[in-house]
Amino acid sequence: MDSSVQYLIELAFQEDIGSGDITTDSVIAPDAEGTGRIVAKESMIIAGLDLAREVFEFLDPDITICSNYKDGDKVKKGKVVMEFEGRMRTLLIGERTALNFLQRLSGIATNVRSYVDALEGKNVRLVDTRKTTPGWRTLEKYAVRMGGAHNHRMGLYDGVLIKDNHIAACGGITKAIETVRKKISHLVKIEVEVSDMSGVKEALKAGAEVIMLDNMSIPQIEKAVKIIKKKAIVEVSGGITKKKLPALADTGVDIISVGALTHAARSYDLSMRIDEKEDTFVAAE
Amino acid sequence: MDSSVQYLIELAFQEDIGSGDITTDSVIAPDAEGTGRIVAKESMIIAGLDLAREVFEFLDPDITICSNYKDGDKVKKGKVVMEFEGRMRTLLIGERTALNFLQRLSGIATNVRSYVDALEGKNVRLVDTRKTTPGWRTLEKYAVRMGGAHNHRMGLYDGVLIKDNHIAACGGITKAIETVRKKISHLVKIEVEVSDMSGVKEALKAGAEVIMLDNMSIPQIEKAVKIIKKKAIVEVSGGITKKKLPALADTGVDIISVGALTHAARSYDLSMRIDEKEDTFVAAE
Amino acid sequence: MDSSVQYLIELAFQEDIGSGDITTDSVIAPDAEGTGRIVAKESMIIAGLDLAREVFEFLDPDITICSNYKDGDKVKKGKVVMEFEGRMRTLLIGERTALNFLQRLSGIATNVRSYVDALEGKNVRLVDTRKTTPGWRTLEKYAVRMGGAHNHRMGLYDGVLIKDNHIAACGGITKAIETVRKKISHLVKIEVEVSDMSGVKEALKAGAEVIMLDNMSIPQIEKAVKIIKKKAIVEVSGGITKKKLPALADTGVDIISVGALTHAARSYDLSMRIDEKEDTFVAAE
Amino acid sequence: MDSSVQYLIELAFQEDIGSGDITTDSVIAPDAEGTGRIVAKESMIIAGLDLAREVFEFLDPDITICSNYKDGDKVKKGKVVMEFEGRMRTLLIGERTALNFLQRLSGIATNVRSYVDALEGKNVRLVDTRKTTPGWRTLEKYAVRMGGAHNHRMGLYDGVLIKDNHIAACGGITKAIETVRKKISHLVKIEVEVSDMSGVKEALKAGAEVIMLDNMSIPQIEKAVKIIKKKAIVEVSGGITKKKLPALADTGVDIISVGALTHAARSYDLSMRIDEKEDTFVAAE
Amino acid sequence: MDSSVQYLIELAFQEDIGSGDITTDSVIAPDAEGTGRIVAKESMIIAGLDLAREVFEFLDPDITICSNYKDGDKVKKGKVVMEFEGRMRTLLIGERTALNFLQRLSGIATNVRSYVDALEGKNVRLVDTRKTTPGWRTLEKYAVRMGGAHNHRMGLYDGVLIKDNHIAACGGITKAIETVRKKISHLVKIEVEVSDMSGVKEALKAGAEVIMLDNMSIPQIEKAVKIIKKKAIVEVSGGITKKKLPALADTGVDIISVGALTHAARSYDLSMRIDEKEDTFVAAE
Amino acid sequence: MDSSVQYLIELAFQEDIGSGDITTDSVIAPDAEGTGRIVAKESMIIAGLDLAREVFEFLDPDITICSNYKDGDKVKKGKVVMEFEGRMRTLLIGERTALNFLQRLSGIATNVRSYVDALEGKNVRLVDTRKTTPGWRTLEKYAVRMGGAHNHRMGLYDGVLIKDNHIAACGGITKAIETVRKKISHLVKIEVEVSDMSGVKEALKAGAEVIMLDNMSIPQIEKAVKIIKKKAIVEVSGGITKKKLPALADTGVDIISVGALTHAARSYDLSMRIDEKEDTFVAAE
Repeated sequence: MDSSVQYLIELAFQEDIGSGDITTDSVIAPDAEGTGRIVAKESMIIAGLDLAREVFEFLDPDITICSNYKDGDKVKKGKVVMEFEGRMRTLLIGERTALNFLQRLSGIATNVRSYVDALEGKNVRLVDTRKTTPGWRTLEKYAVRMGGAHNHRMGLYDGVLIKDNHIAACGGITKAIETVRKKISHLVKIEVEVSDMSGVKEALKAGAEVIMLDNMSIPQIEKAVKIIKKKAIVEVSGGITKKKLPALADTGVDIISVGALTHAARSYDLSMRIDEKEDTFVAAE
Repeated sequence: MDSSVQYLIELAFQEDIGSGDITTDSVIAPDAEGTGRIVAKESMIIAGLDLAREVFEFLDPDITICSNYKDGDKVKKGKVVMEFEGRMRTLLIGERTALNFLQRLSGIATNVRSYVDALEGKNVRLVDTRKTTPGWRTLEKYAVRMGGAHNHRMGLYDGVLIKDNHIAACGGITKAIETVRKKISHLVKIEVEVSDMSGVKEALKAGAEVIMLDNMSIPQIEKAVKIIKKKAIVEVSGGITKKKLPALADTGVDIISVGALTHAARSYDLSMRIDEKEDTFVAAE
Repeated sequence: MDSSVQYLIELAFQEDIGSGDITTDSVIAPDAEGTGRIVAKESMIIAGLDLAREVFEFLDPDITICSNYKDGDKVKKGKVVMEFEGRMRTLLIGERTALNFLQRLSGIATNVRSYVDALEGKNVRLVDTRKTTPGWRTLEKYAVRMGGAHNHRMGLYDGVLIKDNHIAACGGITKAIETVRKKISHLVKIEVEVSDMSGVKEALKAGAEVIMLDNMSIPQIEKAVKIIKKKAIVEVSGGITKKKLPALADTGVDIISVGALTHAARSYDLSMRIDEKEDTFVAAE
Repeated sequence: MDSSVQYLIELAFQEDIGSGDITTDSVIAPDAEGTGRIVAKESMIIAGLDLAREVFEFLDPDITICSNYKDGDKVKKGKVVMEFEGRMRTLLIGERTALNFLQRLSGIATNVRSYVDALEGKNVRLVDTRKTTPGWRTLEKYAVRMGGAHNHRMGLYDGVLIKDNHIAACGGITKAIETVRKKISHLVKIEVEVSDMSGVKEALKAGAEVIMLDNMSIPQIEKAVKIIKKKAIVEVSGGITKKKLPALADTGVDIISVGALTHAARSYDLSMRIDEKEDTFVAAE
Repeated sequence: MDSSVQYLIELAFQEDIGSGDITTDSVIAPDAEGTGRIVAKESMIIAGLDLAREVFEFLDPDITICSNYKDGDKVKKGKVVMEFEGRMRTLLIGERTALNFLQRLSGIATNVRSYVDALEGKNVRLVDTRKTTPGWRTLEKYAVRMGGAHNHRMGLYDGVLIKDNHIAACGGITKAIETVRKKISHLVKIEVEVSDMSGVKEALKAGAEVIMLDNMSIPQIEKAVKIIKKKAIVEVSGGITKKKLPALADTGVDIISVGALTHAARSYDLSMRIDEKEDTFVAAE
Repeated sequence: MDSSVQYLIELAFQEDIGSGDITTDSVIAPDAEGTGRIVAKESMIIAGLDLAREVFEFLDPDITICSNYKDGDKVKKGKVVMEFEGRMRTLLIGERTALNFLQRLSGIATNVRSYVDALEGKNVRLVDTRKTTPGWRTLEKYAVRMGGAHNHRMGLYDGVLIKDNHIAACGGITKAIETVRKKISHLVKIEVEVSDMSGVKEALKAGAEVIMLDNMSIPQIEKAVKIIKKKAIVEVSGGITKKKLPALADTGVDIISVGALTHAARSYDLSMRIDEKEDTFVAAE
């Protein structure tokens, strides 16, 4: 597991448990055993099952966990997503943190899937952006993949994207591409953001490997695709709605990047039922 | 600043910058200077200004920052929220992380404010829950306050909430309250979650200081309020929508807790314009 | 285990072992096996057994540990408190750190028990303060509970205590209580520190849930208890000795807080005998 | 400053402040200014002034601090040890942590000084042991020096002390010394713990540079000193009380090591008065 | 500064200073002031000046540092590379750590420069590999750039290199490229390692953007370059010596990668002279 | 394992793996199994086997590892040093980091052994210095021992070495020794660096326990040895080559310290062959 995810789990427990669960520690015997079932309260694409597992195992390595689903699966409302058997204290203390992770990641995966479905049959790649919750980049980009889309660069360190400020600083697209090419690894493609046809032409001539058409209209995009003629990868970005996707795909672009995949997702509802063994079941928070 | 927030900023930079911004490092001179302006792309309650400041100062203590707003203020679409003067590299590298923090926190504050407005003139306290983004508890609860609502407990460590599992483990509400009372600090109030009138009566008799009515109908709530007669604080929770708020308030309850304040908020749109000094302005990502 | 305790164990090993135990590493074969017994050199209330276990398991997960005692038990002089079987190196390297933890925590628990005994039969709760060894708050408050007393708030974050400076800043007790009430969670009780009868009356009228009588004489306390008449919890604090406890309890107060529970405790003496297997026994440091 | 001390300050704030001082944050304005004075409530040797300074500067670099004392000085009851000027919030939030550090370190220094005074005029070095509070080794050994005594080794890594287990493992003192000598740096002296005259003789012959006489009577010690005749440094340890010190010194030993210097010290009493500027003074907790 | 570099400096001080410089702390007054000069004991390409500065400023922010050189400059034997003015203690304690950083990085930069010089006038890019000292990746790759060469990928996360194991797992080069392409970002180029002409042809046909010729002879490389005809970037790797470089460059390859740039570098010699102010100069270790 | 080594392994993975091995994650199935063999590509003294084991077990606790060698053994060219069985992903991802550790440590051990061999039959101890790679002190000093030499002090904290600056600050060797003696533990020997006979005489007279002759000629060293006559340990340092070692040993000195043991070592070549189970073998990078 990525070390940043490890830190996030630790942060999550620190903030929720801190010096201890004063209610549970007061009334639940350390050796009381129970079972738990996480249930989908609405239909969704599930994501974060391994993380939920990590959360409980971090608290208590003795817990038993099983699930009939894997991340990316569609789960119908009312289905049991994951089952647990172990100490009541572990179940009660880990419940909220595990649900908080699952709800957010499943929310993103479900949101992404609806965009992916809107592009069914189209020959185009849907990708995310860097508009993610700070601290959650790795997880949210993972949920995007579980939803069926692809990732753009992970961060500023693993991809070149030359924007207006960079171009202005160099005195032009050609100069900017040349300057960057000299300094970066030969393994990295250069992407340039352009906003008009002269930008498209200059970027293409200067050898940009990816050209991002920023906030262009459908006719402009069609024109740019014709100019580029597969000599570079074409990406469109800016002001994209789910409704516009099919028309955008039909322009012949290769990549559509959408910030809303991550930043406009809401949490999907899951809850956990916890039962003490040989006892009546009880509904949890 | 809370140390968990400090960690989150570090995580955010680690995931976004990692071994360096390979584009900016290639083309922007280390001593190039510029200005930046964060602009609201829609009307919102702003939250996270100090955090955005921290983000940039973490990168570069020499930056100059000013703002005419403070957290909790209403900002109209198109207004400049914050202005920066300093190294171009700092502005370009910090931009996305600062915006990601601001967009999420302002999204929550704006969402909360719409609930608060729905309760205008009512004598009731609106509070959040523990349904927050893991790692973001402190920040999201802060945004809730900036939106005008209050916080429920911060975590499991600073408040007692006796739920069904706890009651079952003790063999009844009275026993559970007695057990907890003996073990916790005399400074902490005891809250009990009940789902029917017999629960209300038993909790009241056993000396619960706060009684949470879980998923009850308006008539049930009215009945419970009458039974309790101000001898305990009354909280309602579960399945609450913005529309239902005024009617709920009119039942005479003291506290309404709503998970959707945090978990159903979307990001609000802010962008940053960066200009090189003595140069034409350029629109940032 | 609380993460602050985890850090403390790591700090303890860093400071004691650092780059290695140069004596033991030179002369004890890595696979030499032995047994160890921790012995009480004086009668005491034992506390820290799980911590001692953690210390050795942190060094070497293969060690076998058993004990016939649990924290809070009275141990007579000369009794074996804990037994170990495993690598000689582990026993020799962990010995001092484990003893240092046990000696301090048992010292506190034993000290606390003598106060608790002085209150036998009295209907009052004895609590600690924030006068703890920095870094040891969680552990020392745990030892207080093992000694038979209760904890006041854990820190500044989980309880309200309005003191003179807070009152002065607000311009009076009533104003201070109102201001705090508006801002804090509805789950937290408000405690106010007062030093005379007018303070008692104002705090009571303003709805303080706990009233701390600071450094008052027995007759003053009796008078205050009469005024308050169970409408608030009454706590006494300041200049309290073990001898004064019964008289204080007889005034009818609910809570007696004593800083000396933690800050005046001395370490109690325990030592560890280590024997190489199939060899003569040897007394350790 | 030692990094372990840095961690301890962070731990101290984490445990005391956590998610915030809910009382002070509610009622004290962020820009309210005040003064503070730390006062000795009994006569003591002061230690930890720089640490108290660190504590406040960690919270707020803008605070002004001054003191007419330095660590190791004798402070009379009632004297002002340190003065502060700055934000009221800083003063109120840092007060308890700073006092907790000062009280413990001054307690040790004062305890040590009483042992040092008992040896006045004697030609012997008084040293501490490894019986320190876990996490506090560096600080407590510092307080020992401020009290006027010396430090034994810091930990297992910077000094050789061959004990019974090491001797048994090698099959004799001579063999143990030879084995260790071959493996350790030529800069480290070898100390051997012995409990009778034959041990003394063998250690001396084998070239031990320091011989520790463990739990011997005065006549035995005198005999050992005669045998050793300044060919090795002589240390005594075990069961040493303040009263016995002069007689022990008169035997001609070089070093007396006493665990009680650290583990039997109690905290000395200091308090802090905080006044809001242009306001009446108020006594702090 | 990269956070991994920050950690390395902390590790370096922890291991060298630990609980303190017992010699310097004993004899040098805290306020004694001095000057220091770092001198090149042989001619070299200097690298690590900012790091040396960080090392001293980490110890003591009050130190004054100046230098007439910047990283990548050639420094002649005997020249003063850097000058310091500040506390004697800072100079003496930081000296060895600063020199250890400078000597290793300058060693790499000087080694790299000799390879770069061997390729003077050739149209080829010299790059490093992942054969770096663990923990030093960022620093050593930086020194490579200061020596005048370029970096290959930083790690496994920011570049694709398909090797024999990956090809075997997929059942062929074409399948491997297709599989990878589907999963990775559209910004990353795909490099394939091949060892014969059929590999070259298949990789080219499958659209590899970079083809690495592993351990091929000059005639084989010439043949491969002809086949590829600039339709992919050609990299050679394996068994490359400085002597072979010109002939390799003349084959028309684009990239030559050499592990020896980092793993075969020796430290270059620098020393530091420290003088107490108004005193005779003294040669340091 | 030393915690600084633990940090180094974490740093190593962070810098090499970061957000993931994008090639292996794309094409190797999570459950594919394979075998690996680390082979010596030249004859060497092996060092770091346990560390290589740690590296793979850190990634995947399920891996099986065996080796017929132990650190310090001579390994002939072509021999298999270590064998692995486990997940293909683990083998491919851990390979480079494990090799980087092994190559550097074996390089040092092999280098040291050649110096040790040059002193065969001589009665002198060869030791290292503090000229180590920052962050690698513990590991490199370990490799020195595996090569057959000894360690000088670990750092500034565990040994006294009085140099010119210290002497100047005190106003002479005698004064410096006296000052240090008063402050340090009685377990630490005092070493003084001298550069002429008068220094030798003064240091001897003042009771220095180790005298370091800095950069002296053979006749000077012989003279110094005669003066000292075994009354102190004699160490020589500065400008020492392998060729000079026998003559230096014949002067009668006790200790020869050589910085080149660590700072002039090159990496020795090892590679890893990885085979998918029931598949053809493949040569790794």
